[in-house]
Amino acid sequence: MLSHIENEALTRTDRGTPMGEVMRCYWMPALLSSELPEPDCPPIRVRLLGEELVAFRDTQGRVGLLDEFCPHRMASLFLGRNEECGLRCVYHGWKFDVDGNCLDMMNEPPDSDYHTKVGIKAYPTLERGGAVWAYMGEPGSQPPPPPNFEWATVPETHRHISKNWQKCNWLQSLEGGIDTAHAPILHRTITTDTDKAGIGINTDFVTGGAPTLEVDVTDYGYQYVGIRDLGERGDFVRTYQYIMPFHQMRPRQSGYKGQAAKQVIAGHMWVPMDDSNCMIYNWVYSFGPEPITEEEWGEIERGYGRGPDDMLPNFRGKGNRENDWLIDRQVQKYETFTGINGINAQDVAVQESMGAIVDRTRENLTRSDMAIIQARRLLLQAAQTVADGGLPPGVAPTYYNARAIEGVLPKGADWRAEMLELMHPTS
Amino acid sequence: MLSHIENEALTRTDRGTPMGEVMRCYWMPALLSSELPEPDCPPIRVRLLGEELVAFRDTQGRVGLLDEFCPHRMASLFLGRNEECGLRCVYHGWKFDVDGNCLDMMNEPPDSDYHTKVGIKAYPTLERGGAVWAYMGEPGSQPPPPPNFEWATVPETHRHISKNWQKCNWLQSLEGGIDTAHAPILHRTITTDTDKAGIGINTDFVTGGAPTLEVDVTDYGYQYVGIRDLGERGDFVRTYQYIMPFHQMRPRQSGYKGQAAKQVIAGHMWVPMDDSNCMIYNWVYSFGPEPITEEEWGEIERGYGRGPDDMLPNFRGKGNRENDWLIDRQVQKYETFTGINGINAQDVAVQESMGAIVDRTRENLTRSDMAIIQARRLLLQAAQTVADGGLPPGVAPTYYNARAIEGVLPKGADWRAEMLELMHPTS
Amino acid sequence: MLSHIENEALTRTDRGTPMGEVMRCYWMPALLSSELPEPDCPPIRVRLLGEELVAFRDTQGRVGLLDEFCPHRMASLFLGRNEECGLRCVYHGWKFDVDGNCLDMMNEPPDSDYHTKVGIKAYPTLERGGAVWAYMGEPGSQPPPPPNFEWATVPETHRHISKNWQKCNWLQSLEGGIDTAHAPILHRTITTDTDKAGIGINTDFVTGGAPTLEVDVTDYGYQYVGIRDLGERGDFVRTYQYIMPFHQMRPRQSGYKGQAAKQVIAGHMWVPMDDSNCMIYNWVYSFGPEPITEEEWGEIERGYGRGPDDMLPNFRGKGNRENDWLIDRQVQKYETFTGINGINAQDVAVQESMGAIVDRTRENLTRSDMAIIQARRLLLQAAQTVADGGLPPGVAPTYYNARAIEGVLPKGADWRAEMLELMHPTS
Repeated sequence: MLSHIENEALTRTDRGTPMGEVMRCYWMPALLSSELPEPDCPPIRVRLLGEELVAFRDTQGRVGLLDEFCPHRMASLFLGRNEECGLRCVYHGWKFDVDGNCLDMMNEPPDSDYHTKVGIKAYPTLERGGAVWAYMGEPGSQPPPPPNFEWATVPETHRHISKNWQKCNWLQSLEGGIDTAHAPILHRTITTDTDKAGIGINTDFVTGGAPTLEVDVTDYGYQYVGIRDLGERGDFVRTYQYIMPFHQMRPRQSGYKGQAAKQVIAGHMWVPMDDSNCMIYNWVYSFGPEPITEEEWGEIERGYGRGPDDMLPNFRGKGNRENDWLIDRQVQKYETFTGINGINAQDVAVQESMGAIVDRTRENLTRSDMAIIQARRLLLQAAQTVADGGLPPGVAPTYYNARAIEGVLPKGADWRAEMLELMHPTS
Repeated sequence: MLSHIENEALTRTDRGTPMGEVMRCYWMPALLSSELPEPDCPPIRVRLLGEELVAFRDTQGRVGLLDEFCPHRMASLFLGRNEECGLRCVYHGWKFDVDGNCLDMMNEPPDSDYHTKVGIKAYPTLERGGAVWAYMGEPGSQPPPPPNFEWATVPETHRHISKNWQKCNWLQSLEGGIDTAHAPILHRTITTDTDKAGIGINTDFVTGGAPTLEVDVTDYGYQYVGIRDLGERGDFVRTYQYIMPFHQMRPRQSGYKGQAAKQVIAGHMWVPMDDSNCMIYNWVYSFGPEPITEEEWGEIERGYGRGPDDMLPNFRGKGNRENDWLIDRQVQKYETFTGINGINAQDVAVQESMGAIVDRTRENLTRSDMAIIQARRLLLQAAQTVADGGLPPGVAPTYYNARAIEGVLPKGADWRAEMLELMHPTS
Repeated sequence: MLSHIENEALTRTDRGTPMGEVMRCYWMPALLSSELPEPDCPPIRVRLLGEELVAFRDTQGRVGLLDEFCPHRMASLFLGRNEECGLRCVYHGWKFDVDGNCLDMMNEPPDSDYHTKVGIKAYPTLERGGAVWAYMGEPGSQPPPPPNFEWATVPETHRHISKNWQKCNWLQSLEGGIDTAHAPILHRTITTDTDKAGIGINTDFVTGGAPTLEVDVTDYGYQYVGIRDLGERGDFVRTYQYIMPFHQMRPRQSGYKGQAAKQVIAGHMWVPMDDSNCMIYNWVYSFGPEPITEEEWGEIERGYGRGPDDMLPNFRGKGNRENDWLIDRQVQKYETFTGINGINAQDVAVQESMGAIVDRTRENLTRSDMAIIQARRLLLQAAQTVADGGLPPGVAPTYYNARAIEGVLPKGADWRAEMLELMHPTS
């Protein structure tokens, strides 16, 4: 449970708000690289931390991220022409490069130098792991080291990424994501006689019951584990990484001591578009020799309810608040816990069902919410750190080698002794 | 005409408002029994007095009416599973019974007793007359006697009920309903050469012209009559019952001294969903030996513009503000006064056309608005009564035998002498 | 650039606001005459300066413009019956004539004179040039001389008019209209190999480059010219008229000294519906002997993106903010500057793209915005004049003979000497 003031501080991200200032210390995913597929392709709108922006890829392939509105008379640059290393406003032909310089003004005489005196807000960008990242700190301030997550630096054959737009505040999506307790409840199938995606009723994840959580704070956020008692078979231990401010890694097939055939980790980033909308970036990667094929990726996405038949062109799911997330009550009765198709679509449903910004003054947390409580604590501390002029955790490049691993450990084994080294390989 | 303060006091029904506190003294219709057709069927959302609720019918057939949001982390219980005598949140498996007790928490260890310490808001319910009623008073307070209206207690064969959702404040719907003056104007047909529903141009209701109103306050609200001069044929007298806070009874075929073939009374309840939406419950019943057949009921509903072809699944009419209530200007010119199909659809149109909450500081009332004026007066008095710790009229069971009767009386006859006994039969 | 206070003062037009009071000094277009095609036809809704009104044409052909809501209990008169010289509310049958008198009340006894004591707000109207105009000044105040623009008084064969609804504040539409600099940029085609409407790449308008503006204030607003240097061919001079508060005239084929085959002028009126919506009236007329045929008019409208296939029945374009104005990025790359179909549709796109009310504190104006700056100055002065009890420019009938002319002048010729007389013929 939070006070109203804490809830406001954690959820608002406009410039000048506590969390808005924290967010502006990091490289943030702004769009998928594939949304700007080639030089001089059409610009797109981007909404990030409450700011209205437009992104374009120039003739040299560089990505510009500008204020959406032309500084002349505020026409939208979304309508602009992407021409010879600059985005040109269609209203009076003002043209801007990726750094925000005005190169030309068609409504000025040829000898005018007025264009040298007017610029446009432009954020530095870089591309990593199939995403375009932006640094939205104060103009001229030094961007942090690049977001070289392992997933973002493996070969393209070993990594896939997608995104989906959720109509709720970023924090309740993050909290849903780092909450391991819900997974084998919300996402379970309730019969073996179903072809619906979900966590099987006979898996260790489900039969292990409510987990015991342990959370270890690190210099980039924290790592945490959910330990489920499998009786004499041992303990099912799932480890996660939370990297500030909104990244999570979780094991997919990253088995301890060869318990899984592959070495695949998955994760999310829950990025605030504005206070009532967030964009969720979803990635998987292999850190083993095996790539992840297009077929495997397609199957993963369909399982999560993000297949081509599940999504609208605007990155919203076809199931959404307006249609009760296409809940099927017969399926809910006989096949899956929710009756909603796709694991991620189930997350979307519960998170959006709480309303745009959930009222955390009313909640009743349990021991299984420990990771959520810790994330809030770190975020509030980070707000104080930034207000005091410091840099929050996760800006310094201490997270580059973080991994998330799972496995069944012998009864009584110490997960830290067994797994910490695997979670931070020294390469 | 009301002051702005009075208009606010009468129209707002959130908890803590004057009228909100009045409403919370009564049993209120919350849904149709048929919306929860069987034990363990899917839960539905209910919006009542500005509160967001969820209703479910448990394994034993009891109806629960709970806060929509799970007290753990506020996921919507609309997504919940209706299981073995409880509604279970899909997020972490918290399960609640119809009384609001938490029976189980799937994210807690088996030995945890945390579930005994967290409950959910639950309102007492009962079923009468095809509706589920809720008492939304303070937790633990004593509900009033059951709403044993005669219509609600006759056999099912003799009673029918439906509901429709109107996008305006409850009070302007109530005022439209208790206003007998508009009926032969708004609802009239303007030719005998039409098959449209309406009040015929040659009926006593129309030819009688503007009525003289008389209003007698009772201990549950008031009874009132509209007297129309039929010349030497006598006086056409229509009596009505207004039962606090939002019930009305009106004669349908409840003829004085055998003037009608049957003994059928109709009525409405105008229930606030929130300040800009109300749900209207429509009923008819026979207090004579004859039942009302499904065919008769179907014809009644079609005549009111509430037939299966007229309604959307969400209880909105297909004609609504967005499409100008499907007004047909040719029909309006040649067949009916409004060109809108269905008597009740005509009421919806004028009431919604005023806006969400009509500005009563601008109105100019006439003598024919006497019943409206009296209702406002009683409601404002009730607000004072409740503020002083008392119970408002219509809570005590003095309305159980109230009826509404109509007929043509000989010129000069005293309607009270002729009809009062029929309006309050003692057996 | 404006201060926030100036921006508010210029954009808000509700009664009591500075610009609202200025607007209420003029005759204002309220609807097209063709929207009320015949006596006793159905009434329509009109939104003007933030007021909700209803217009009807009575049995004698006169147009009434009344408060939308009946003064009895505020039912909408849009639902009303247009009967024998009056509009009758369907709720209780109150009937009003075009002057706002109540003629009858069906819910009152025959001998009642209550109807003589209740009127409804009614604005004086007149018809000119295919439009119905309203004077919305204080009740009883003297309307100004009629809006006898030349275009409004030529024979119907020589004049055409249309309207379209734009979802942004009136001032940014006006500013787009009086801004000659954008026309050969926004509206240009970028190849000769296209059949899309636009200003051709080889026209004087485009090759002349950024214009030099000159603005001469008049007693009704101002006249201004855009002068484009055609090198040894001379100067391309285009003159315009701005008539307070929102009219503009521009040359279409109104050639200087026979340089055009016809004598056709076009123009717009940007009329505030409310602060976030304006209705644009578009007219063309011939002041020469030749009429403008229906075929010519159809071609003009299609070229502007206002053809029958381009518009919705509610006067919105099919391309609008919700669908990115149907921008075609391939067309934008290879055929037209914007990829948006129709010259006026391009104006709609840039003006709506700025948002409902553009934030003029952020803009960076250039010399080519001189006409815009001057219009703001006149409007702010007019607000002061009206606040001081005076009448603003453009109310007195000094604009009746104003015209807009264009042509190529010999190098060094004085446009005032050559053209002023043509712009103000003494008939």
